[in-house]
Formats: sequence, C-alpha cells, structure tokens
Amino acid sequence: MSLALDSAAQDLLFREAHTANTFSDEPVTDEQIQAVYDLVKYAPTAFNQSPLRIVLIRSEEARERLAPLMAEGNREKTRNAPLVAILATDNEFHEELPELFPHFPQAKDVFFTERPVREKSAALNGSLQAGYFILGIRAAGLAAGPMTGFDFAGVQKEFLDGDHTPLMIVNIGKPGEGASYPRSPRLPYEQVVTTV
Amino acid sequence: MSLALDSAAQDLLFREAHTANTFSDEPVTDEQIQAVYDLVKYAPTAFNQSPLRIVLIRSEEARERLAPLMAEGNREKTRNAPLVAILATDNEFHEELPELFPHFPQAKDVFFTERPVREKSAALNGSLQAGYFILGIRAAGLAAGPMTGFDFAGVQKEFLDGDHTPLMIVNIGKPGEGASYPRSPRLPYEQVVTTV
Repeated sequence: MSLALDSAAQDLLFREAHTANTFSDEPVTDEQIQAVYDLVKYAPTAFNQSPLRIVLIRSEEARERLAPLMAEGNREKTRNAPLVAILATDNEFHEELPELFPHFPQAKDVFFTERPVREKSAALNGSLQAGYFILGIRAAGLAAGPMTGFDFAGVQKEFLDGDHTPLMIVNIGKPGEGASYPRSPRLPYEQVVTTV
Repeated sequence: MSLALDSAAQDLLFREAHTANTFSDEPVTDEQIQAVYDLVKYAPTAFNQSPLRIVLIRSEEARERLAPLMAEGNREKTRNAPLVAILATDNEFHEELPELFPHFPQAKDVFFTERPVREKSAALNGSLQAGYFILGIRAAGLAAGPMTGFDFAGVQKEFLDGDHTPLMIVNIGKPGEGASYPRSPRLPYEQVVTTV
C-alpha cells in the first residue's frame, strides 16, 4: 500500500528520524523555528484553539536556571543542546477564540467559561500541537529530543506563570555522535487497531 | 527559509489540508489504515510507551451505537463518514514497556507503578500520537475530521473498558462537497514563541 506522501518525506519525518540525545555544535536559528511554526500552525486543534506556547532558551543565564530543574539524566544534554524549547499550554486560550474561530464566535462563552474545562482541552490540544511541532523540527532537517523528566512546578515558576502549564521540554539541533539508541520495537498493528 | 521537507509534502500535510466535515462515498480500506499506522508508529513517545489504541467502526450496528453518543452537531457527519475511528489510551501500557523500551527494562517498575501517573503519561503521549495519526491520515491522501464533542463515558462503556480512556473520534475519508470551512486565522509567531 503506497501513501500519497512521497517516500523521502516519509523517511525524513518518521522512518529515518530518531530522538537525539547528543547534538552537533551547529546553531539553530530563530528563522528555522519560525519556518517550523509557519508550517505546523496549520495542523488542527479543537475550535482552532491553538493553545501551544513555546519558550526558547537562548541566554546562558536562562539555561543555567533550567538545567537544575531537569532530571539528572536529562541535565547534560539540555546544557549542551544548540537550542532548548519549553512547550506549554495557555489555559486562557479562550480569550483568542473570537478571532481564531470566526465561524462560531460564541464558543468562548458557550464551552470555555470554566478553567478546569480549559485546562483539560488545552492539555489535549497542546499535546496534539506538540506532536506537530516535533514533526516540524524534523521537517526542518533537525532532530528533536523531547523530555518530560523535569520539575514541572519549578519550570512553571521560573519560566511561565499561573496561566501556563508546561507540557514538555524539547532539545533541538543536528544530531551528534551516537545521538540515538537503536530503533526500539513498535507494537504490531493487530495489538493497536481493532475493528467493530 | 526553506525546510528540508519538500514543498508538496508541506502542502499535503499542513498547508493544503483541512479538517473535513463531509466526505465522498469512496471507502477507506483496512490496508490504508495499516499503511498509516506503519508510518506513524515510528514517531516518538516517552519511553516508547506507545499508549494509543484505535477502534475502527466498520459495522452498521457499531455505528448506530456510536451515533447517539455524538454531540448533535457531530452526529450526521459521523453517520456518513466512510470510516470512523475512536482514538483511546491504554492506561495499562506499562505492561508492554519491557518489550518496547529494552534500553531500560526497569522503567515499568521505576516510573509507572501508580495508575494516576500512567493515566497522565498516557494522556500526554496518546495525544502526541493522535497528532501523528491525523497527519498520517493526510499522508495517505485522506482527510481527517477529529472531534471531541461526544459522551466520553458513554463511548468508554460501549466500545472500550475501564483500562482505556477515549481521546477523540476521527472521521476519515476523501473530502466531499463543501467539506471545509475557509481557513481560520492562526496566531502570529510573536504571540506563540518567546525567547529568554
């Protein structure tokens, strides 16, 4: 069964791409991240709510604040990655809905008046967008190293505010020597997909 | 700034793709869904935990059980889509970890002994995989119509079990007449990405 997506793109995004744990020294520019965003921003979220927010760690000072908040096994690679991005949700995303979802400008007041509802929706849709972003990094010819091993409350306190919840932190760059584990097994189709 | 991903692939997955609300009569085959899975299964999850599970609604009987559980605005399109998929998480994913993450077979017992921890990790990583799956549907030349407007408890009771949590339901097919809204605006880069 052949897909509509060409084979080189399949390899770039999925088959030949690997999570990177070491990186080369080549910098990652703001222009590259903007190109990634300008591509993946089109992928869908519920009510086009687009709750993902991204904090790029560029200064040495910010990186030194972040490193101790990482789990020990993630500390060195986060210190050395060309670029580190904190992915978070904006739990007040509903303020943008009248502009983002002009087909139904009442959505803000019909569905999203309660903060716990917004947090749950932002977690789901922000995670969808995190998936799109990881593939977008690969689309730029870069490797991603997504991590959830860090002090979530500490990262929120140091880099965000009470309206933003961290989702994950992603190291970004060209892979270095021995960047990846060998490919781990995947579940067989029959174990994942059932039909009724 | 040009990306490594070729322009046709960018269009297919992101720029020219739209959420579909109506579909043509052309069927979606199991072979197509298997091809999608065999591509997107390689995209990353934490500890390669791969918690996404998919239930394909094929029989008329199953579709008639599902339709009344959909929000009214989603009912007709779910009745008429060529294929409907329930995306869910397996909250007992840790049972597969010794096989899925051979670099650290202790992960199951070190990190995932508690059910609430597993549920949270499965929600995040299953949502990442839902994002990969939606792009995979597009990679197959099909359109996706993801929905969260349905009775979650009812869908869990009718189609899953206590160990599986619904994430979303996705209509799948070739787009029909008037399938999509005009493209809604996206947030500007400066509103989404900040640098420290």
